[in-house]
This record gives sequence, structure tokens and C-alpha cells, in this order.
Amino acid sequence: MKIALDALGGDFGAKPNVLGALKAAKALDIHVILVGDEAVIKQELQAQGCTALPPNISVVHAPDTIDMGAEPAKECRNKKSASIVVCADLVHKGEADAFVSAGHSGAAMVASLFRMGRIKGVVRPAIATPMPTYKGVSLLLDGGANADCKPLHLLQFAVMGSAYMEKVFDLKSPSVRILSIGEEETKGNFLVKHTIPHMREIGVNFQGTLEGRDVNTGETDVIVCDGFVGNIVLKMAEGLSKTIINMIKREVKKRPLAILGALLAKGAFSAVKKHTNPDQYGGAPLVGVNGVAIISHGKSNEVAIFNALKTAKRLVEKNFVGDIAARVAALKDTFCAIEAEMQEEEK
Amino acid sequence: MKIALDALGGDFGAKPNVLGALKAAKALDIHVILVGDEAVIKQELQAQGCTALPPNISVVHAPDTIDMGAEPAKECRNKKSASIVVCADLVHKGEADAFVSAGHSGAAMVASLFRMGRIKGVVRPAIATPMPTYKGVSLLLDGGANADCKPLHLLQFAVMGSAYMEKVFDLKSPSVRILSIGEEETKGNFLVKHTIPHMREIGVNFQGTLEGRDVNTGETDVIVCDGFVGNIVLKMAEGLSKTIINMIKREVKKRPLAILGALLAKGAFSAVKKHTNPDQYGGAPLVGVNGVAIISHGKSNEVAIFNALKTAKRLVEKNFVGDIAARVAALKDTFCAIEAEMQEEEK
Repeated sequence: MKIALDALGGDFGAKPNVLGALKAAKALDIHVILVGDEAVIKQELQAQGCTALPPNISVVHAPDTIDMGAEPAKECRNKKSASIVVCADLVHKGEADAFVSAGHSGAAMVASLFRMGRIKGVVRPAIATPMPTYKGVSLLLDGGANADCKPLHLLQFAVMGSAYMEKVFDLKSPSVRILSIGEEETKGNFLVKHTIPHMREIGVNFQGTLEGRDVNTGETDVIVCDGFVGNIVLKMAEGLSKTIINMIKREVKKRPLAILGALLAKGAFSAVKKHTNPDQYGGAPLVGVNGVAIISHGKSNEVAIFNALKTAKRLVEKNFVGDIAARVAALKDTFCAIEAEMQEEEK
Repeated sequence: MKIALDALGGDFGAKPNVLGALKAAKALDIHVILVGDEAVIKQELQAQGCTALPPNISVVHAPDTIDMGAEPAKECRNKKSASIVVCADLVHKGEADAFVSAGHSGAAMVASLFRMGRIKGVVRPAIATPMPTYKGVSLLLDGGANADCKPLHLLQFAVMGSAYMEKVFDLKSPSVRILSIGEEETKGNFLVKHTIPHMREIGVNFQGTLEGRDVNTGETDVIVCDGFVGNIVLKMAEGLSKTIINMIKREVKKRPLAILGALLAKGAFSAVKKHTNPDQYGGAPLVGVNGVAIISHGKSNEVAIFNALKTAKRLVEKNFVGDIAARVAALKDTFCAIEAEMQEEEK
């Protein structure tokens, strides 16, 4: 199995990507294609003591890079040699079975849509983000690809998120909840109120709504929301965790005894930090695009890259894309009826 | 000055309300009207050693209670003797200058709208919620009254939130940001993208967008968003803080040395807990209704009730309602032009 890796993607350049690829090439029985500026990649390989490439690592030269500040669609259209575009192209042409990138998630989505396209019947692919919780991990989608959504989009997110939790986390019947502002199904915004009535028609294990206070408890396997809300929730989880730790540090520093106490409790803090580190969860898949594509955090280290490659392998082995295609095809009539009903209502 | 208090509002019945009222009657130079079932209130007063009412506390009998599970609008319409309806009525009739309730926030908003009405020119009143941050406090609005919003609503939230931070927290030119999913003003959902261009036309200190990760840093004085997003953010801040503390506790318990350490650091943890306790911030005002109305947390203790009464007093003294009316009147033409532009676009 061949997996393309956006070798210069992420905030730390080639190093974590090359290290993650080397580790995966040793441990995972896959072939990794490093995609990016060849000279930079080879230099990094040499810096890591690789004078000759291992037989299951190859390099594809892709000299362009995506400007993070620019419009992703324009960048991907104009820069055909950008590493992320080449990655998606390799999957499209069947020269890779999947790709992994720690680069710009918007660009990864656009490149995937341009080169690989959508799975038939999927209206809007989404970023499905595994989120650390008290109990373990919940999958939140959409993590930010679709700022404005319609009920049909959310319903398909529920189907695709369930498939992911079954395939990757081996759950039998993952619970699904829709993020809202009250336990009653009559509460919520227009989108939520129009999505809920159909949630029981699409064969997922729908458990009702979920409020903000329960997002991180881990009681729900798949949390569904639009990409605007999802992106705010994900970034807030990250930011608030840091803020609370910083508050504790600030108060500890004021108290000599507490400084000693914090030293004694260091192991506990490290364990919490490890538990809430997203690196272990193998990145966020782009669900609904016609191929396996995994986005890893911009701050990915080699462990995160290795785990993303591992998840990509698993998704290929489990025929994740084919499975979603089958589920969506089976629900075709249901989705059509819902879409027609919504269009009727909009009139 | 007379302030009506929903005497049985909140999760703990009469006790925290009566204690908060007694404290305020002593310390604040106000008259508190306890509104609710007279027998229950008098019993609680006696339990607190008050055989005779202090001269600046009175009781207004209101035997009905709002069913928390029912539709607030229906409840408020049908139960004219519900304490929250009577509170709003007292303000409307000029028999009280303000009201405070720790009861159902939706019912408080509905009762205020029914009895007191909106300030002229305000399209949608909002719940303005003070939120603990690393630096101090930020005001987030809307906290949940309006699940679906239009640009004009958000613009008015910005104006009213700025007025509140000036009046209550004595800030000169409070910074305003709109919650979104990227620093670029071209990102965001439809609502945000259509609100941003007008934010500089309304005389607030607009600083651009704010991402989820910065919600709790305290860099922004007024955070503007729709009530769906706002409610999720507020509840998530509460829930996630608890989750992280629970994670730390869980890891500490596994390690004997860490248990000792946590004991030594106890003062630091208590300080963080105190700092993040919303009780100190004096409740959440309903901004845009035609009178001073403050909602306090359902779990309010006597300190929270006291602080809410204190904030109510301050808002009356500072002519908060008149100030908002003046600001909105001054922006009348701007708001009309924005509304017309949006209606044109919808066509």
C-alpha cells in the first residue's frame, strides 16, 4: 500500500514528516511517498542519517507551496505543483492509496475536491476531528470545512462520522448527538430544529441533542454540528485547556508550598497533558471526498505524523471510502425526500 | 430605589434569595421587594431569624411558578401570577426600578418582553453574560436568547454590550470582537461575513474577529455572536473547566506523592476556582428590554444574588436603559440603511 505524505506540511517543515515517514516505513508495512521539494526532503533525510532511501520510501518532487494567507481555491487552481495538490493527484491517479498532510486544512480540502472529487451522493465533505474527552475520544464533524450548512449536510455528517468510528475505533453502534442549546428537541437554531426530525430516518444511533457543557465528557461518540460551530468548539477546547493550566500555574507561583506541591504532582499533570494531546488520535479525515485523505494538526510532531499514516492505512484496508459510498447510496431515496421537503419549505 | 427579586427563583429555592436580599437591604441602600409565594418567603425569613420585616424589605405575593420544561411564552401568558411575570410587571408599572431573577432565563426574557417591552429601535434584546477569563472578565452576547440572528441584531448587541462594559466595569472604550473561525475578515459564516463590514459604522471600538482559542484569554471586552453559538460557548466553558479539573483529580488519585502535592497546592486550586466563579460578576443583564432586568445563574448562592442586586442598582443609577435608548436612536439611520441593504440582498 502506498501513502503520499505532504513532506513539508505543518509548522515545523520537513523534520517531523520525514521522521514520521521513516518510523512508519519500518513499522507499518506501507510505502511512503514523500511529496515536496526534493532537495529539501533529501537534505532532511541525510540529516536523519539516511544516505540511501529505504526501499519503501520514495520522493515525488513538488516545488510549489500554498500561501497560507491566500484563498485556498485560487492557490490550488494556480499551483499545480504544490505538494498538497500533487498528493491529491497521486490518489486520484491511483499512484497512492491515501494521502496525509499537516498543512493548511482548507487547501487539503480544496485540493481533494479538485483532484479526487466527492463520493457519489455526498453533498458536502467534512473534516471529522477526533477530540480528547474525559472518557477517551469523541469525533466532531464538521470541524470547519462548511461554515454554513443545511440539514442534509448534517445528516450526511452523522452517517459518515458513524462509519469512521466503526472502522477506526471499532465501535459497534456509535452514539450520535447533535450539538444544540437545550436538551429538548424543540430548542436550537433553524438548522438544528430542521435536522433533528430526520436523524432517526438515516440508520445512525441517534441519541438526541448535546449541550456545550457535555462536549468534552466523552459520553457521545459522534458529535454533529456545522463547520462554524465545530471550528469554534475545537479551538475553544484547545485554548481553554491552556488557559486553565496557565491560571493554575499563575496561582502556584504565588505560593512556595504550592510550588513544592506542584512538583510532587507533576506526574499527574503530565498524564493529563498526554491524555489531552490530539497527536495520539491519528489526525482528522476528510470524510466524503473520493479517497482517503487525513489532515494532521499544524503542530504535528513525528508521532502525530506516524499515527496519521497508521490511520490512513487502516482506512484503506477497511475500505472506508467504499463503505461510505454504499451507505450513502442505500440512503439515496431518504436524502432526496429530505432535500425536496426542505426546498418546498424554503419557497 | 426599589428592586424586585424573584424570591423562589433558582435551583435552591427561597434561601439564597432571602439571604442575598437581607444582605443587600443592609449594605446597599435599596429597598428589596421579595416576589413569590408569601407563606414560603415568610417561613424562610423566620428561619433566618427575621421575625419582623426590615423597613426596606417588602413581600409581594405571587403564587404561580413557571414550569421549566414548558414553552416559556405559553407559561408567561397563562400564569399572570408567576413570580417572574409579577417582577416584570412591577418594573413596567414603575413600582420597582429593576428586577433580579435566578429562575428560567428564557421565561425572564419572555416576561420582560411581554410586560416591559423593548427599548425603541432595538430589534432583539439579548442576554449579556459576563464570562471569567485569564485576565478578568469578558462580556459575551447573545448568551442564548436568539438562536438565529441577522447582522443588524449582532450590530446592536455590539452597541449594547459596549454600553454595559462602560457603565458597570468602568471601561473607557471597550474592545469589541466578533466570534468567527479565522483571523481574516473574509472567513466566517454568512452571518459573520455580512456583519463585519458594518461593525465600523456603529461607533464601537471594533477590533476584528476572535477565534475559539481566544475566547477565554480576556483580551476582548465584548464578544459578539448569535445566541446559538453563545450558549454553546458559555456552557462549554463551564463544562470543560470541570472536565479538566476532574482529569487532574483522577490522575492525582493514582499517585500517592501527587495526593500530597495536591494538598500542598490546595490554595492555588481554590484561587483558580474563586477566579472562575461567575457569582462575583453580578449576573447577566437582559440588554435591550425597556427596564433593568438581571438574570442570575440557577445555582446562585446568596453572594451571587447580592451581587446581582448590586449590579441592578448600578444600572438604574447610571441610567443604563436611557443610555442604550440614546445610542440606538443616534444610530437609527445607520441601522435602517443596513437593514434595507440586507433586505435588498435577500431578494
